Amino acid sequence: MTTTGRQLFTTLDEDGTLTVEIAETSFPEPTGNQVLVKMEAAPINPSDLAILTGAADFENADYSPGKVVARMPEPFNSGQKARHGKRLPAGNEGAGTVVAAGNSDIAKGLMGQRVACVPGSAYAEYAIADAAMCLPLGDHSAEDGASSFVNPMTALGFVENARMDGQKAILHTVGASNLGLMLERICQEDGMALVNIVRKDEQVKLLKDAGAQWVVNSSDGDFMEQLRAGIDATGAFYGFDPIGGGQMVDHCFKAMEQVAVKQMSEYSRYGSNQQKRMLIYGRLDLSPTTLTPSYGFGWTLSGWLLTPFLQTAGAETVMRMRKRVLDNLTTTFASGYKSKVSLEGMLEKDAILDYRRMKTGEKYLVTPQA
Amino acid sequence: MTTTGRQLFTTLDEDGTLTVEIAETSFPEPTGNQVLVKMEAAPINPSDLAILTGAADFENADYSPGKVVARMPEPFNSGQKARHGKRLPAGNEGAGTVVAAGNSDIAKGLMGQRVACVPGSAYAEYAIADAAMCLPLGDHSAEDGASSFVNPMTALGFVENARMDGQKAILHTVGASNLGLMLERICQEDGMALVNIVRKDEQVKLLKDAGAQWVVNSSDGDFMEQLRAGIDATGAFYGFDPIGGGQMVDHCFKAMEQVAVKQMSEYSRYGSNQQKRMLIYGRLDLSPTTLTPSYGFGWTLSGWLLTPFLQTAGAETVMRMRKRVLDNLTTTFASGYKSKVSLEGMLEKDAILDYRRMKTGEKYLVTPQA
Repeated sequence: MTTTGRQLFTTLDEDGTLTVEIAETSFPEPTGNQVLVKMEAAPINPSDLAILTGAADFENADYSPGKVVARMPEPFNSGQKARHGKRLPAGNEGAGTVVAAGNSDIAKGLMGQRVACVPGSAYAEYAIADAAMCLPLGDHSAEDGASSFVNPMTALGFVENARMDGQKAILHTVGASNLGLMLERICQEDGMALVNIVRKDEQVKLLKDAGAQWVVNSSDGDFMEQLRAGIDATGAFYGFDPIGGGQMVDHCFKAMEQVAVKQMSEYSRYGSNQQKRMLIYGRLDLSPTTLTPSYGFGWTLSGWLLTPFLQTAGAETVMRMRKRVLDNLTTTFASGYKSKVSLEGMLEKDAILDYRRMKTGEKYLVTPQA
Repeated sequence: MTTTGRQLFTTLDEDGTLTVEIAETSFPEPTGNQVLVKMEAAPINPSDLAILTGAADFENADYSPGKVVARMPEPFNSGQKARHGKRLPAGNEGAGTVVAAGNSDIAKGLMGQRVACVPGSAYAEYAIADAAMCLPLGDHSAEDGASSFVNPMTALGFVENARMDGQKAILHTVGASNLGLMLERICQEDGMALVNIVRKDEQVKLLKDAGAQWVVNSSDGDFMEQLRAGIDATGAFYGFDPIGGGQMVDHCFKAMEQVAVKQMSEYSRYGSNQQKRMLIYGRLDLSPTTLTPSYGFGWTLSGWLLTPFLQTAGAETVMRMRKRVLDNLTTTFASGYKSKVSLEGMLEKDAILDYRRMKTGEKYLVTPQA
């Protein structure tokens, strides 16, 4: 029996034409450890947008029902040479009901259950998913479970990684995001100190109301002073940043070094011995990251991605993290959504222009059966 | 008995006035593990210039015998707040004869010997040095031994560090420097592959004549192609860079990722799984480092300094490295000098303007007894 249904595809051609469209397609029978999930809800995360919209010009795109054609500017078009001509699915995660299963016990055991899954093709009526990555949702709704992987595992991953690296405090540069609020709740539960950076007074209030102790507003005139105070009090010489471009990482390294130098008794031409570490886990800002020579040589900047981290952490840690997410799905790990859209609704101009801005706390949920 | 003699001091005042001067001073009696060394030769390394001249304006400075007063521009003046008003010595390393020793056996054992040392105040007639860091030079001249610490241990440190990190190849972005040529010789001896980046055809020839297999000229139109070929052939996803500012690190990460992606069988929106690492060990270019979003998240950029590395490596490794330097002082670890200057000669306009340019292969040697 072949299952057919609608699925979103995104194709970037060599000449910079990006076509995103909903098309009728056939889904294969699941084999081995695979399950076929009838998708009911899938969030649009910043990590999805990289492939879904990228830096393309959607202001001046060509819109028709279930299809949009936009121009990808340089250097972003040639920078994605590897995907030229490839018709790619999108949607990292979502939730739905298992309607067919492969032969493995773990796959068969999920038959008929509502699960959260990580198919990489969640913007579709059906998706083939790895049973080992599925989380049975019990009585939870698909909406509750739709965002149970990317943000929860990333936020938990930060705390796990910080602990592995011997840290007792974390700096997070976008404190008021869905992920940021989750991280705040986890840190409170785990006794990990957290310094949050936000851009607006109402975000300060949002985090303070959630019990946050350290919230620093980058729009304030004394931002650097606030940041130094937070680092000094917590020892947060270790931070996560989803912005990537611009000067935020530089500001953080500077503040860390200034705090460390102030704690030194003697001048050193090489700066402090305090190791400073920042990890970039997103690219909300596609402009270059700039690093100034103002904090010596005791610093490390890395890219951070969830999948390689989970591989490093090992299966046991991942299982423990997944269980914690399921046990606290509607509390610690709850996500909020600004809007719900159908597959076709995803490709309407107003929707695209809105969700691609990735405004803090304004996430979209796709409901593929609508 | 108090020893007196001339010494160089560099002072940056809060208002941005940098005063570098030679002054008569008294040197204390060495105690414990210290020795007093009558300094005969000391190189001017890029790492010395950070404190000696920094970014000050020596074109329009005020020159008098044994003294120069220059303006330190912003942001470099406020960036060095911690040294404001401090009269600092300079000169990381040098060589001379031990004329007094503390009470420890190791210090007393060096009495009367010619040694290489790392006093941090080598631009002086005398310097107090740590006996444990002294290298007895035997029949070698002070000139032969003057540069036996910073460059040799740094170049050896790169290879040691690369091996610790499981690497079989290194990328070096300034291949034709004194240190770069040393690194080339070490890599040949140790069977470590090395990709050298240089800026001129004559530097390509210099390295090729020294037996280098991979030399890439960044002034060539097909620089990136050459770089990719070198990385592809050697597996050099791990590099050291003394430039710091500008785009060199970005070029290296880009080339590494392009090679890695070409070796992949399947497209991934997150780029390759190949870990890419660059280490900045100097700041020949004080402009910001810029990193573009063109190589995914599998990369790490760190500052690298010799002293923390040696602390990590441990005493046994350091002893082994030091012995190797001494055994090969005039071959593998030989340094060349463009000019010799006296202490007063260091502060003459022509000399300062020349050595502060840090031109590849044009190192100065200070002879404090002249």
